[in-house]
Amino acid sequence: MKNYIDIPDKEVTTSLIKSAMNLKNDPFKDLAIGKNKRLIMLFFNASLRTRLSTQQAAEQLGMHVSILNISTAWSIEFEDGSIMNLEKAEHVKEAAQVISQYCDILAIRAFPSLTDKEKDLSEQLINGFKTHASVPIINMESATAHPLQALADALTIKEMSTKSTPKVVLTWAPHPKALPHSVANSFIKMMQQQPVDFSICHPEGYELDPNITKNTPISYNQEAALQGADFVYAKNWSSFNQYGQVTNQDSSWMLTEQKLDQAQFMHCLPIRRNVITEDAVLDGKKSLVIQQANNRTYAAQAVIKELLLNS
Amino acid sequence: MKNYIDIPDKEVTTSLIKSAMNLKNDPFKDLAIGKNKRLIMLFFNASLRTRLSTQQAAEQLGMHVSILNISTAWSIEFEDGSIMNLEKAEHVKEAAQVISQYCDILAIRAFPSLTDKEKDLSEQLINGFKTHASVPIINMESATAHPLQALADALTIKEMSTKSTPKVVLTWAPHPKALPHSVANSFIKMMQQQPVDFSICHPEGYELDPNITKNTPISYNQEAALQGADFVYAKNWSSFNQYGQVTNQDSSWMLTEQKLDQAQFMHCLPIRRNVITEDAVLDGKKSLVIQQANNRTYAAQAVIKELLLNS
Amino acid sequence: MKNYIDIPDKEVTTSLIKSAMNLKNDPFKDLAIGKNKRLIMLFFNASLRTRLSTQQAAEQLGMHVSILNISTAWSIEFEDGSIMNLEKAEHVKEAAQVISQYCDILAIRAFPSLTDKEKDLSEQLINGFKTHASVPIINMESATAHPLQALADALTIKEMSTKSTPKVVLTWAPHPKALPHSVANSFIKMMQQQPVDFSICHPEGYELDPNITKNTPISYNQEAALQGADFVYAKNWSSFNQYGQVTNQDSSWMLTEQKLDQAQFMHCLPIRRNVITEDAVLDGKKSLVIQQANNRTYAAQAVIKELLLNS
Repeated sequence: MKNYIDIPDKEVTTSLIKSAMNLKNDPFKDLAIGKNKRLIMLFFNASLRTRLSTQQAAEQLGMHVSILNISTAWSIEFEDGSIMNLEKAEHVKEAAQVISQYCDILAIRAFPSLTDKEKDLSEQLINGFKTHASVPIINMESATAHPLQALADALTIKEMSTKSTPKVVLTWAPHPKALPHSVANSFIKMMQQQPVDFSICHPEGYELDPNITKNTPISYNQEAALQGADFVYAKNWSSFNQYGQVTNQDSSWMLTEQKLDQAQFMHCLPIRRNVITEDAVLDGKKSLVIQQANNRTYAAQAVIKELLLNS
Repeated sequence: MKNYIDIPDKEVTTSLIKSAMNLKNDPFKDLAIGKNKRLIMLFFNASLRTRLSTQQAAEQLGMHVSILNISTAWSIEFEDGSIMNLEKAEHVKEAAQVISQYCDILAIRAFPSLTDKEKDLSEQLINGFKTHASVPIINMESATAHPLQALADALTIKEMSTKSTPKVVLTWAPHPKALPHSVANSFIKMMQQQPVDFSICHPEGYELDPNITKNTPISYNQEAALQGADFVYAKNWSSFNQYGQVTNQDSSWMLTEQKLDQAQFMHCLPIRRNVITEDAVLDGKKSLVIQQANNRTYAAQAVIKELLLNS
Repeated sequence: MKNYIDIPDKEVTTSLIKSAMNLKNDPFKDLAIGKNKRLIMLFFNASLRTRLSTQQAAEQLGMHVSILNISTAWSIEFEDGSIMNLEKAEHVKEAAQVISQYCDILAIRAFPSLTDKEKDLSEQLINGFKTHASVPIINMESATAHPLQALADALTIKEMSTKSTPKVVLTWAPHPKALPHSVANSFIKMMQQQPVDFSICHPEGYELDPNITKNTPISYNQEAALQGADFVYAKNWSSFNQYGQVTNQDSSWMLTEQKLDQAQFMHCLPIRRNVITEDAVLDGKKSLVIQQANNRTYAAQAVIKELLLNS
């Protein structure tokens, strides 16, 4: 594995999930692997879980960590050939080459604009760093993908599943703000690989990128879709077709205890209580959200370990 | 000791002061205690001394430290049952449970609003984290308390006192801005436990919370109150009755060399020169403010050590 | 060496360059030197290279590092005798003494105002900390100097030079914004010591501080100045006489492949592509900018090592 920018092949994810489970069992067993190695974490956007869990993961492998909120430094140019006489102070060509020299792995968070669809889909920022960096890149959530989250989610389902082929449903849920597609995208790609019966439901008009959903079954009927589900993953995303718009806040799509029935509830956090789901779900025994967040550490640790050993 | 949120019982503070003195003598003697342990420091407000000294304290015990300026991440909901469709992105229920999983101790700084008295007195934020966290909480200054500062202050008095019962006076001093009551509150609670002759003086109308001052003598006459003092602790606070108002900036309450006479001068810093006290005091031999700041490290180290061993 | 605030004597820089070369060869050879020692880095301004490379340097010597963006804490008073009843919350006298107690070395970044020439030239901020600190101070770029950059630059020239006395030219280049004189100043002082044939060229009116340029040859004719150069160091600076003004953005001063001829290209980064120099230079084999940035780590490491051992 050269980088961890998107969901890798099934063989790799299977190995990462297994590695994450082993690390969760004994988080400090590989302290020697990262000795005298350094992870740099660049944040173009705010982070709580990703920042804390990834730092912890790296240090549990014996690494040093440097964290830079790049937005408080200066803005970076990504276009080739531009005459940089405006606000952009540094080109990604220099930034990526320079920062690579100060570390062994470079992790980057950079949300989408949600206004320029073509640019967001091109993953200009993270691909710019990938092209010019001389060290492996970890995606800590980019314009279209959040593969560390999806790895933690797959690990959680593996831990909690009592069936050989559990039914997993990704359902859209309402939210007052326009949110990215990254978590949904990466969860879909991950579930398409996993031994699960996977489907998606969302209001009409909330179709995700067809290059990602592919032939995964899609329903506009939440009630029907959730029937018999073992795991319900709730997530809001803004419209993909009317790119970045909030065209629907229909509260009837909120997940309730009643709707969930026997299913376990999943969400990547942060979660809007009584908007995405009700208090009773989050405070009840069927919620896996805290466990998912905990698994972020071991997902990141498995990825970092793999990149240290085999990139 | 389960948490360090307010001044603990006398027996505990006595033991913490003794431990802090031992650690000051040999700061690296307990490097093994924090091995593979992590402190997370959450800042809802700015910090200089607390941030630097607490990080140093934890690392001198062998811990890893993660620091998050939470204000630059997102705002947190503390009300039960709220429908989170406005600005608050995450509920303390999730935040506290999640962050607990990434660390062994969680330290929090969150100043009061100074506008909503009831809310400030309820310590909603730090109590919200305490209720939902699964690890010990350290108060790095909350709405009504700053117990790490008070521990450093008690340590300083113990180091510098030549009497069995020194006279200690907490005096209000002028300041252009509305300041919290936390430092004064915690110093009062601490002094009420210590072997000192303790009194408070402030202008009429600047009474602190009577649940804290209890039967400690209070004077409106600074000159009389300071007579024969061994330690004078200067501190501004805004009005408690006219909550958060600055109703008095009377510069005659500034501490001068003449007023201090034989007393040693204490303040928690940062200090406004020639407003709280004059240059001659801070630049003279009677000032203990630099020593107090130094003792912040060992106070924090004693608290963290105790929580690592006995929480 | 007591501090590293400006370019030290030739003997010291020679020793530092040698030490940096050794450390580059084996960066972890001196992990024991910084054990249980702490570097505090205070940033009054944004930083990318300096922050990442200096943290890396300190940790490669086994030190702990604390980083504080002081601008997000509060503003500091530097004037003696002031009555601090306005915005400044803490005097440098307290700040420097207090922070010194939390570390073994204090590194500071503080850019010039570019509006108050006298104040900038007085280096009030870094000298204020130097006066009141009890630990060595490292300048991470101040109002008038950037000696860590100059040390990395001298190291780069030493690594790349094939002649006993290479020709080195510092040339002004255009930029849309008003930039400090610090990098140019420190590079000049460093080159005046080194075994190089050194000259400066810039448009008329862009003379630097004559106390720094001294008898170094200065030309207004870039083409003539660059003739036969082995190393061309490009840098923009704002006017020193019309202090802090941008009186010239003449793009004919941009460095091109043609102008550079056989010379290797140097710049401290960040660099405005197609403003300071063209893409062909930065993407070509004559550019040393990435190597210069890499050498920042070893320059800082040599300085920190020297201060730990001999301050």
